[in-house]
Amino acid sequence: MIYVIGIGPGCREMMTEEAIEAIKKSDVIVGYKTYISLIEDLIEGKEVLQNGMRNEIDRCKAAIEIEATGKTVAVVSSGDSGIYGMAGLVLELASKEEKRPEIKVVPGVTASIGAAAVLGAPIMHDFCHISLSDLLTPWEVIEKRLRLAADADFVICLYNPRSKGRSEHLSKAFDIMREFKGGDTPVGIVKNVGRDGEEKHIMTFDTMNFEIVDMTTMVIIGNKETYIDGDRMITPRGYRL
Amino acid sequence: MIYVIGIGPGCREMMTEEAIEAIKKSDVIVGYKTYISLIEDLIEGKEVLQNGMRNEIDRCKAAIEIEATGKTVAVVSSGDSGIYGMAGLVLELASKEEKRPEIKVVPGVTASIGAAAVLGAPIMHDFCHISLSDLLTPWEVIEKRLRLAADADFVICLYNPRSKGRSEHLSKAFDIMREFKGGDTPVGIVKNVGRDGEEKHIMTFDTMNFEIVDMTTMVIIGNKETYIDGDRMITPRGYRL
Repeated sequence: MIYVIGIGPGCREMMTEEAIEAIKKSDVIVGYKTYISLIEDLIEGKEVLQNGMRNEIDRCKAAIEIEATGKTVAVVSSGDSGIYGMAGLVLELASKEEKRPEIKVVPGVTASIGAAAVLGAPIMHDFCHISLSDLLTPWEVIEKRLRLAADADFVICLYNPRSKGRSEHLSKAFDIMREFKGGDTPVGIVKNVGRDGEEKHIMTFDTMNFEIVDMTTMVIIGNKETYIDGDRMITPRGYRL
Repeated sequence: MIYVIGIGPGCREMMTEEAIEAIKKSDVIVGYKTYISLIEDLIEGKEVLQNGMRNEIDRCKAAIEIEATGKTVAVVSSGDSGIYGMAGLVLELASKEEKRPEIKVVPGVTASIGAAAVLGAPIMHDFCHISLSDLLTPWEVIEKRLRLAADADFVICLYNPRSKGRSEHLSKAFDIMREFKGGDTPVGIVKNVGRDGEEKHIMTFDTMNFEIVDMTTMVIIGNKETYIDGDRMITPRGYRL
Protein backbone atom coordinates (compact mmCIF):
# COMPACT_ATOMS: atom_id res chain seq x y z
CA MET A 1 0.00 0.00 0.00
CA ILE A 2 1.15 3.52 -0.82
CA TYR A 3 -0.41 6.34 1.19
CA VAL A 4 0.01 9.69 -0.56
CA ILE A 5 -0.37 12.02 2.38
CA GLY A 6 -0.95 15.74 2.74
CA ILE A 7 0.51 16.76 6.10
CA GLY A 8 -1.08 20.23 6.10
CA PRO A 9 0.83 23.52 6.18
CA GLY A 10 3.29 22.41 8.83
CA CYS A 11 2.05 22.26 12.39
CA ARG A 12 0.69 19.08 13.92
CA GLU A 13 -2.63 20.77 14.79
CA MET A 14 -3.54 21.18 11.12
CA MET A 15 -2.90 17.52 10.25
CA THR A 16 -5.88 15.19 9.96
CA GLU A 17 -6.28 12.11 12.11
CA GLU A 18 -6.13 10.00 8.96
CA ALA A 19 -2.76 11.47 7.95
CA ILE A 20 -1.25 10.77 11.37
CA GLU A 21 -2.59 7.19 11.37
CA ALA A 22 -1.36 6.52 7.83
CA ILE A 23 2.15 7.70 8.73
CA LYS A 24 2.14 5.49 11.83
CA LYS A 25 1.06 2.45 9.75
CA SER A 26 3.82 2.96 7.16
CA ASP A 27 7.16 1.13 7.11
CA VAL A 28 8.94 3.61 4.84
CA ILE A 29 8.53 7.38 4.59
CA VAL A 30 9.35 9.11 1.30
CA GLY A 31 9.51 12.87 0.85
CA TYR A 32 11.31 16.13 0.26
CA LYS A 33 13.60 16.75 3.22
CA THR A 34 11.86 19.92 4.45
CA TYR A 35 8.58 18.03 4.79
CA ILE A 36 10.25 15.07 6.48
CA SER A 37 11.67 17.43 9.09
CA LEU A 38 8.15 18.65 9.93
CA ILE A 39 7.05 15.15 11.02
CA GLU A 40 10.28 13.89 12.57
CA ASP A 41 8.69 12.93 15.88
CA LEU A 42 6.07 10.78 14.09
CA ILE A 43 8.54 8.70 12.10
CA GLU A 44 11.15 7.74 14.69
CA GLY A 45 12.66 4.37 13.91
CA LYS A 46 11.14 4.16 10.42
CA GLU A 47 13.08 3.86 7.18
CA VAL A 48 13.23 7.29 5.51
CA LEU A 49 13.97 8.13 1.90
CA GLN A 50 14.41 11.84 1.46
CA ASN A 51 15.99 14.00 -1.18
CA GLY A 52 15.93 17.53 -2.51
CA MET A 53 13.40 19.47 -4.52
CA ARG A 54 13.08 18.59 -8.23
CA ASN A 55 13.68 14.89 -7.58
CA GLU A 56 9.96 14.21 -7.40
CA ILE A 57 9.92 11.59 -10.14
CA ASP A 58 12.73 9.58 -8.55
CA ARG A 59 11.02 9.72 -5.18
CA CYS A 60 7.69 8.49 -6.53
CA LYS A 61 9.32 5.72 -8.60
CA ALA A 62 11.19 4.59 -5.49
CA ALA A 63 7.92 4.51 -3.52
CA ILE A 64 6.36 2.23 -6.16
CA GLU A 65 9.39 -0.08 -6.13
CA ILE A 66 9.38 -0.32 -2.34
CA GLU A 67 5.65 -1.05 -2.27
CA ALA A 68 6.24 -3.92 -4.72
CA THR A 69 8.41 -5.62 -2.05
CA GLY A 70 5.39 -5.77 0.25
CA LYS A 71 6.11 -2.76 2.41
CA THR A 72 3.68 0.02 3.32
CA VAL A 73 4.96 3.36 2.07
CA ALA A 74 3.98 6.92 2.94
CA VAL A 75 4.72 9.59 0.32
CA VAL A 76 4.36 12.93 2.11
CA SER A 77 3.61 16.39 0.67
CA SER A 78 3.00 19.59 2.61
CA GLY A 79 -0.54 20.94 2.40
CA ASP A 80 -2.82 18.61 0.47
CA SER A 81 -1.16 15.89 -1.59
CA GLY A 82 -3.70 16.39 -4.39
CA ILE A 83 -2.98 20.14 -4.87
CA TYR A 84 0.40 20.72 -6.55
CA GLY A 85 1.49 17.71 -4.42
CA MET A 86 2.59 14.14 -5.09
CA ALA A 87 -0.78 12.40 -5.63
CA GLY A 88 -0.90 13.05 -9.37
CA LEU A 89 2.66 11.91 -10.01
CA VAL A 90 2.29 8.71 -8.00
CA LEU A 91 -0.96 7.84 -9.81
CA GLU A 92 0.50 8.72 -13.22
CA LEU A 93 3.57 6.54 -12.66
CA ALA A 94 1.48 3.72 -11.17
CA SER A 95 -0.79 3.68 -14.24
CA LYS A 96 2.25 2.62 -16.31
CA GLU A 97 3.03 -0.39 -14.08
CA GLU A 98 2.00 -3.86 -15.12
CA LYS A 99 1.06 -4.77 -11.54
CA ARG A 100 -0.74 -1.71 -10.19
CA PRO A 101 0.18 -0.83 -6.62
CA GLU A 102 -2.58 -0.17 -4.10
CA ILE A 103 -2.74 3.60 -3.52
CA LYS A 104 -4.74 5.73 -1.10
CA VAL A 105 -4.74 9.52 -1.29
CA VAL A 106 -5.01 11.02 2.22
CA PRO A 107 -6.22 14.63 1.98
CA GLY A 108 -4.92 17.56 3.98
CA VAL A 109 -5.36 21.28 4.62
CA THR A 110 -3.79 23.11 1.68
CA ALA A 111 -1.79 26.33 2.11
CA SER A 112 -4.56 28.64 0.87
CA ILE A 113 -6.98 27.33 3.50
CA GLY A 114 -4.38 27.60 6.25
CA ALA A 115 -3.43 31.12 5.20
CA ALA A 116 -7.08 32.15 4.86
CA ALA A 117 -7.75 31.16 8.48
CA VAL A 118 -4.82 33.34 9.60
CA LEU A 119 -6.06 36.30 7.52
CA GLY A 120 -9.73 36.08 8.52
CA ALA A 121 -12.12 34.94 5.79
CA PRO A 122 -10.73 35.99 2.41
CA ILE A 123 -11.86 32.92 0.39
CA MET A 124 -15.52 32.92 1.50
CA HIS A 125 -16.68 33.29 -2.09
CA ASP A 126 -15.65 31.75 -5.45
CA PHE A 127 -11.87 31.58 -5.70
CA CYS A 128 -9.10 30.00 -7.73
CA HIS A 129 -5.59 28.71 -7.29
CA ILE A 130 -2.91 29.71 -9.78
CA SER A 131 0.71 28.58 -9.51
CA LEU A 132 3.19 31.16 -10.83
CA SER A 133 5.89 28.53 -11.40
CA ASP A 134 6.58 28.07 -15.10
CA LEU A 135 8.83 25.05 -14.56
CA LEU A 136 6.00 22.72 -15.63
CA THR A 137 3.48 25.14 -17.20
CA PRO A 138 4.08 27.56 -20.10
CA TRP A 139 4.05 31.19 -18.91
CA GLU A 140 1.44 32.10 -21.56
CA VAL A 141 -1.02 29.68 -19.94
CA ILE A 142 -0.38 31.28 -16.55
CA GLU A 143 -0.88 34.78 -18.01
CA LYS A 144 -4.17 33.81 -19.63
CA ARG A 145 -5.47 32.30 -16.38
CA LEU A 146 -4.47 35.40 -14.40
CA ARG A 147 -6.27 37.70 -16.84
CA LEU A 148 -9.49 35.66 -17.05
CA ALA A 149 -9.56 34.98 -13.29
CA ALA A 150 -9.23 38.70 -12.56
CA ASP A 151 -11.94 39.51 -15.14
CA ALA A 152 -14.21 36.90 -13.49
CA ASP A 153 -13.65 38.64 -10.13
CA PHE A 154 -12.44 35.48 -8.44
CA VAL A 155 -10.54 35.74 -5.18
CA ILE A 156 -7.11 34.60 -6.43
CA CYS A 157 -4.65 32.49 -4.40
CA LEU A 158 -1.13 32.47 -5.81
CA TYR A 159 1.00 29.38 -5.16
CA ASN A 160 4.78 29.44 -5.76
CA PRO A 161 4.56 33.22 -6.07
CA ARG A 162 8.19 34.21 -6.20
CA SER A 163 11.50 32.36 -6.14
CA LYS A 164 15.05 33.64 -6.53
CA GLY A 165 15.13 32.45 -10.11
CA ARG A 166 11.76 34.03 -10.96
CA SER A 167 11.69 37.19 -8.90
CA GLU A 168 9.72 39.13 -11.53
CA HIS A 169 6.81 36.69 -11.94
CA LEU A 170 4.77 38.16 -9.12
CA SER A 171 4.97 41.78 -10.25
CA LYS A 172 4.24 40.67 -13.82
CA ALA A 173 1.17 38.82 -12.51
CA PHE A 174 -0.01 41.97 -10.74
CA ASP A 175 0.46 43.99 -13.95
CA ILE A 176 -1.80 41.54 -15.77
CA MET A 177 -4.50 41.55 -13.10
CA ARG A 178 -4.45 45.35 -12.75
CA GLU A 179 -6.82 45.76 -15.70
CA PHE A 180 -9.60 44.29 -13.55
CA LYS A 181 -8.48 44.59 -9.91
CA GLY A 182 -8.83 48.06 -8.39
CA GLY A 183 -5.91 49.66 -6.54
CA ASP A 184 -7.66 49.30 -3.18
CA THR A 185 -8.29 45.55 -3.60
CA PRO A 186 -7.07 43.89 -0.39
CA VAL A 187 -4.09 41.55 -0.66
CA GLY A 188 -3.32 39.11 2.15
CA ILE A 189 0.14 37.67 2.56
CA VAL A 190 1.07 34.84 4.92
CA LYS A 191 4.58 33.46 5.23
CA ASN A 192 5.29 30.07 6.81
CA VAL A 193 1.66 29.23 7.61
CA GLY A 194 1.50 27.10 10.74
CA ARG A 195 5.30 26.93 11.00
CA ASP A 196 7.94 28.75 13.02
CA GLY A 197 8.23 32.30 11.79
CA GLU A 198 4.62 32.65 10.64
CA GLU A 199 4.07 36.22 9.43
CA LYS A 200 0.92 37.96 8.24
CA HIS A 201 0.62 41.16 6.20
CA ILE A 202 -2.48 42.83 4.83
CA MET A 203 -1.94 45.33 2.02
CA THR A 204 -3.75 46.53 -1.08
CA PHE A 205 -3.06 46.10 -4.76
CA ASP A 206 -1.44 49.56 -4.88
CA THR A 207 0.63 49.25 -1.69
CA MET A 208 1.80 45.70 -2.44
CA ASN A 209 5.37 44.93 -1.36
CA PHE A 210 6.72 42.21 -3.64
CA GLU A 211 10.03 41.97 -1.79
CA ILE A 212 8.60 40.24 1.27
CA VAL A 213 7.20 37.37 -0.81
CA ASP A 214 9.13 34.11 -1.28
CA MET A 215 8.29 30.48 -2.07
CA THR A 216 6.97 29.81 1.46
CA THR A 217 4.44 32.62 1.08
CA MET A 218 0.76 32.49 0.16
CA VAL A 219 -0.64 35.56 -1.61
CA ILE A 220 -4.43 36.00 -1.62
CA ILE A 221 -5.99 38.78 -3.72
CA GLY A 222 -9.56 39.78 -2.88
CA ASN A 223 -12.59 40.23 -5.13
CA LYS A 224 -14.59 43.46 -5.58
CA GLU A 225 -16.41 42.98 -2.25
CA THR A 226 -13.40 42.03 -0.11
CA TYR A 227 -12.58 44.50 2.67
CA ILE A 228 -10.07 45.01 5.44
CA ASP A 229 -11.31 45.15 9.04
CA GLY A 230 -8.41 45.91 11.39
CA ASP A 231 -5.95 43.05 10.95
CA ARG A 232 -8.45 40.91 9.06
CA MET A 233 -9.34 40.40 5.42
CA ILE A 234 -12.99 39.49 4.80
CA THR A 235 -14.79 38.51 1.60
CA PRO A 236 -18.55 38.65 2.22
CA ARG A 237 -20.63 35.64 1.20
CA GLY A 238 -23.46 37.98 0.26
CA TYR A 239 -25.74 37.99 3.31
CA ARG A 240 -27.69 41.24 3.86
CA LEU A 241 -26.78 42.29 7.39
CA MET B 1 -13.59 33.06 22.57
CA ILE B 2 -15.42 31.94 19.44
CA TYR B 3 -13.86 29.11 17.46
CA VAL B 4 -15.22 28.99 13.90
CA ILE B 5 -14.48 25.41 13.03
CA GLY B 6 -14.42 23.44 9.80
CA ILE B 7 -15.13 19.81 10.69
CA GLY B 8 -14.14 18.42 7.27
CA PRO B 9 -16.44 16.54 4.92
CA GLY B 10 -17.97 14.39 7.62
CA CYS B 11 -15.87 11.53 8.94
CA ARG B 12 -13.70 11.89 12.02
CA GLU B 13 -10.56 10.85 10.10
CA MET B 14 -10.67 13.99 7.96
CA MET B 15 -10.94 16.35 10.95
CA THR B 16 -7.82 18.15 12.09
CA GLU B 17 -6.42 17.77 15.60
CA GLU B 18 -7.03 21.48 16.14
CA ALA B 19 -10.73 21.18 15.27
CA ILE B 20 -11.21 18.30 17.70
CA GLU B 21 -9.38 20.16 20.48
CA ALA B 22 -11.34 23.38 19.89
CA ILE B 23 -14.65 21.51 20.10
CA LYS B 24 -13.53 19.85 23.33
CA LYS B 25 -12.57 23.23 24.82
CA SER B 26 -15.92 24.84 23.97
CA ASP B 27 -18.84 25.24 26.38
CA VAL B 28 -21.49 25.79 23.71
CA ILE B 29 -21.73 24.30 20.20
CA VAL B 30 -23.61 26.24 17.52
CA GLY B 31 -24.44 24.85 14.08
CA TYR B 32 -26.81 23.56 11.45
CA LYS B 33 -28.35 20.35 12.74
CA THR B 34 -26.89 18.06 10.06
CA TYR B 35 -23.36 19.14 11.04
CA ILE B 36 -24.09 18.80 14.75
CA SER B 37 -25.17 15.20 14.16
CA LEU B 38 -21.77 14.44 12.57
CA ILE B 39 -19.92 15.29 15.79
CA GLU B 40 -22.42 14.05 18.37
CA ASP B 41 -19.93 11.86 20.21
CA LEU B 42 -17.54 14.80 20.67
CA ILE B 43 -20.08 17.15 22.24
CA GLU B 44 -21.78 14.95 24.82
CA GLY B 45 -22.91 16.98 27.80
CA LYS B 46 -22.29 20.33 26.11
CA GLU B 47 -24.90 23.01 25.50
CA VAL B 48 -25.97 22.83 21.83
CA LEU B 49 -27.71 25.48 19.76
CA GLN B 50 -28.83 24.04 16.45
CA ASN B 51 -31.32 25.09 13.84
CA GLY B 52 -32.15 24.60 10.18
CA MET B 53 -30.52 25.83 6.99
CA ARG B 54 -30.99 29.54 6.12
CA ASN B 55 -30.83 30.61 9.77
CA GLU B 56 -27.12 31.32 9.52
CA ILE B 57 -27.36 34.95 10.63
CA ASP B 58 -29.35 34.09 13.76
CA ARG B 59 -26.89 31.35 14.63
CA CYS B 60 -23.87 33.60 14.32
CA LYS B 61 -25.51 36.44 16.26
CA ALA B 62 -26.35 33.98 19.03
CA ALA B 63 -22.72 32.81 19.12
CA ILE B 64 -21.54 36.40 19.60
CA GLU B 65 -24.08 36.99 22.38
CA ILE B 66 -23.09 33.81 24.18
CA GLU B 67 -19.40 34.66 23.93
CA ALA B 68 -20.11 38.04 25.53
CA THR B 69 -21.26 36.18 28.67
CA GLY B 70 -17.79 34.70 29.03
CA LYS B 71 -18.38 31.29 27.51
CA THR B 72 -16.28 29.57 24.88
CA VAL B 73 -18.33 28.93 21.76
CA ALA B 74 -17.73 26.65 18.77
CA VAL B 75 -19.49 27.56 15.52
CA VAL B 76 -19.21 24.51 13.29
CA SER B 77 -19.40 24.24 9.49
CA SER B 78 -18.80 21.17 7.37
CA GLY B 79 -15.68 21.24 5.21
CA ASP B 80 -13.63 24.36 5.87
CA SER B 81 -15.32 27.18 7.78
CA GLY B 82 -13.66 29.76 5.51
CA ILE B 83 -15.04 28.32 2.23
CA TYR B 84 -18.76 29.02 1.84
CA GLY B 85 -18.84 28.39 5.63
CA MET B 86 -19.49 30.48 8.74
CA ALA B 87 -16.14 32.27 9.20
CA GLY B 88 -17.06 35.25 7.02
CA LEU B 89 -20.43 35.80 8.61
CA VAL B 90 -19.10 35.60 12.18
CA LEU B 91 -16.30 38.07 11.35
CA GLU B 92 -18.67 40.42 9.50
CA LEU B 93 -21.13 40.49 12.40
CA ALA B 94 -18.35 40.82 14.97
CA SER B 95 -16.94 43.84 13.14
CA LYS B 96 -20.17 45.70 13.94
CA GLU B 97 -19.89 45.03 17.70
CA GLU B 98 -18.61 47.71 20.03
CA LYS B 99 -16.70 45.16 22.09
CA ARG B 100 -15.12 42.83 19.55
CA PRO B 101 -15.27 39.17 20.53
CA GLU B 102 -12.10 37.09 20.33
CA ILE B 103 -12.38 34.84 17.26
CA LYS B 104 -10.20 32.06 15.94
CA VAL B 105 -10.83 30.43 12.56
CA VAL B 106 -9.92 26.73 12.67
CA PRO B 107 -9.40 25.42 9.13
CA GLY B 108 -10.59 22.11 7.74
CA VAL B 109 -10.57 19.88 4.67
CA THR B 110 -13.09 21.34 2.22
CA ALA B 111 -15.38 19.16 0.09
CA SER B 112 -13.39 19.58 -3.13
CA ILE B 113 -10.21 18.28 -1.47
CA GLY B 114 -12.06 15.35 0.12
CA ALA B 115 -13.76 14.49 -3.17
CA ALA B 116 -10.52 14.85 -5.12
CA ALA B 117 -8.82 12.26 -2.88
CA VAL B 118 -11.67 9.82 -3.58
CA LEU B 119 -11.46 10.45 -7.35
CA GLY B 120 -7.65 10.22 -7.63
CA ALA B 121 -5.87 13.49 -8.40
CA PRO B 122 -8.22 15.75 -10.41
CA ILE B 123 -7.16 19.10 -8.87
CA MET B 124 -3.40 18.69 -9.31
CA HIS B 125 -3.24 21.82 -11.45
CA ASP B 126 -4.82 25.30 -11.26
CA PHE B 127 -8.47 25.04 -10.29
CA CYS B 128 -11.39 27.13 -9.10
CA HIS B 129 -14.44 26.81 -6.90
CA ILE B 130 -17.77 28.12 -8.18
CA SER B 131 -21.00 27.86 -6.18
CA LEU B 132 -24.09 27.41 -8.37
CA SER B 133 -26.41 28.72 -5.66
CA ASP B 134 -27.94 32.04 -6.66
CA LEU B 135 -29.48 32.67 -3.24
CA LEU B 136 -26.68 35.12 -2.37
CA THR B 137 -25.04 35.73 -5.76
CA PRO B 138 -26.70 37.03 -8.96
CA TRP B 139 -26.94 34.29 -11.60
CA GLU B 140 -25.24 36.57 -14.18
CA VAL B 141 -22.10 36.68 -11.99
CA ILE B 142 -22.11 32.88 -11.78
CA GLU B 143 -22.54 32.59 -15.58
CA LYS B 144 -19.64 34.96 -16.24
CA ARG B 145 -17.37 33.02 -13.87
CA LEU B 146 -18.29 29.70 -15.48
CA ARG B 147 -17.53 31.03 -18.96
CA LEU B 148 -14.20 32.65 -18.06
CA ALA B 149 -13.09 29.71 -15.91
CA ALA B 150 -13.79 27.28 -18.76
CA ASP B 151 -11.97 29.56 -21.22
CA ALA B 152 -8.99 29.69 -18.81
CA ASP B 153 -8.94 25.85 -18.77
CA PHE B 154 -9.20 25.69 -14.99
CA VAL B 155 -10.25 22.44 -13.36
CA ILE B 156 -13.67 23.54 -12.05
CA CYS B 157 -15.19 22.40 -8.74
CA LEU B 158 -18.92 23.09 -8.46
CA TYR B 159 -20.32 23.66 -4.96
CA ASN B 160 -24.10 23.56 -4.33
CA PRO B 161 -24.53 22.09 -7.82
CA ARG B 162 -28.20 21.17 -7.84
CA SER B 163 -31.07 21.50 -5.37
CA LYS B 164 -34.76 20.69 -5.77
CA GLY B 165 -35.55 24.35 -6.25
CA ARG B 166 -32.77 24.85 -8.82
CA SER B 167 -32.67 21.58 -10.71
CA GLU B 168 -31.74 23.29 -14.01
CA HIS B 169 -28.67 25.23 -12.77
CA LEU B 170 -26.24 22.39 -13.35
CA SER B 171 -27.26 21.66 -16.95
CA LYS B 172 -27.28 25.41 -17.67
CA ALA B 173 -23.75 25.60 -16.25
CA PHE B 174 -22.64 22.77 -18.54
CA ASP B 175 -24.21 24.54 -21.55
CA ILE B 176 -22.12 27.63 -20.75
CA MET B 177 -18.87 25.68 -20.29
CA ARG B 178 -19.43 23.60 -23.43
CA GLU B 179 -17.95 26.35 -25.63
CA PHE B 180 -14.54 25.58 -24.12
CA LYS B 181 -14.75 22.10 -22.58
CA GLY B 182 -14.56 19.20 -25.05
CA GLY B 183 -17.14 16.42 -24.93
CA ASP B 184 -14.58 13.91 -23.63
CA THR B 185 -13.50 16.13 -20.68
CA PRO B 186 -13.61 13.92 -17.56
CA VAL B 187 -16.18 14.81 -14.91
CA GLY B 188 -15.85 13.39 -11.40
CA ILE B 189 -18.84 13.17 -9.11
CA VAL B 190 -18.71 12.30 -5.42
CA LYS B 191 -21.78 12.14 -3.23
CA ASN B 192 -21.56 12.23 0.58
CA VAL B 193 -17.75 12.50 0.74
CA GLY B 194 -16.51 10.78 3.90
CA ARG B 195 -20.04 10.06 5.10
CA ASP B 196 -22.35 7.04 5.03
CA GLY B 197 -23.48 6.40 1.47
CA GLU B 198 -20.35 7.80 -0.20
CA GLU B 199 -20.67 7.27 -3.97
CA LYS B 200 -18.21 7.97 -6.76
CA HIS B 201 -18.91 8.30 -10.49
CA ILE B 202 -16.54 9.18 -13.29
CA MET B 203 -18.14 10.37 -16.53
CA THR B 204 -17.37 12.78 -19.35
CA PHE B 205 -18.87 16.10 -20.36
CA ASP B 206 -20.99 14.33 -23.03
CA THR B 207 -22.12 11.38 -20.90
CA MET B 208 -22.89 13.51 -17.83
CA ASN B 209 -25.91 12.39 -15.81
CA PHE B 210 -27.35 15.45 -14.06
CA GLU B 211 -30.02 13.45 -12.25
CA ILE B 212 -27.63 11.80 -9.80
CA VAL B 213 -26.38 15.18 -8.53
CA ASP B 214 -27.85 16.80 -5.42
CA MET B 215 -26.70 19.31 -2.78
CA THR B 216 -24.46 16.76 -1.03
CA THR B 217 -22.55 16.17 -4.28
CA MET B 218 -19.23 17.60 -5.46
CA VAL B 219 -18.80 17.91 -9.23
CA ILE B 220 -15.24 18.29 -10.57
CA ILE B 221 -14.70 19.05 -14.26
CA GLY B 222 -11.23 18.39 -15.67
CA ASN B 223 -8.96 20.60 -17.77
CA LYS B 224 -7.66 19.79 -21.26
CA GLU B 225 -5.00 17.40 -19.86
CA THR B 226 -7.20 15.51 -17.40
CA TYR B 227 -7.67 11.82 -18.17
CA ILE B 228 -9.46 8.78 -16.83
CA ASP B 229 -7.40 5.77 -15.73
CA GLY B 230 -9.72 2.92 -14.68
CA ASP B 231 -11.73 4.27 -11.77
CA ARG B 232 -9.48 7.30 -11.30
CA MET B 233 -9.45 10.86 -12.63
CA ILE B 234 -5.98 12.37 -13.00
CA THR B 235 -4.91 15.89 -13.95
CA PRO B 236 -1.18 15.85 -14.76
CA ARG B 237 1.00 18.46 -13.08
CA GLY B 238 3.13 18.61 -16.23
CA TYR B 239 6.09 16.30 -15.51
CA ARG B 240 7.61 14.61 -18.58
CA LEU B 241 7.45 10.91 -17.78
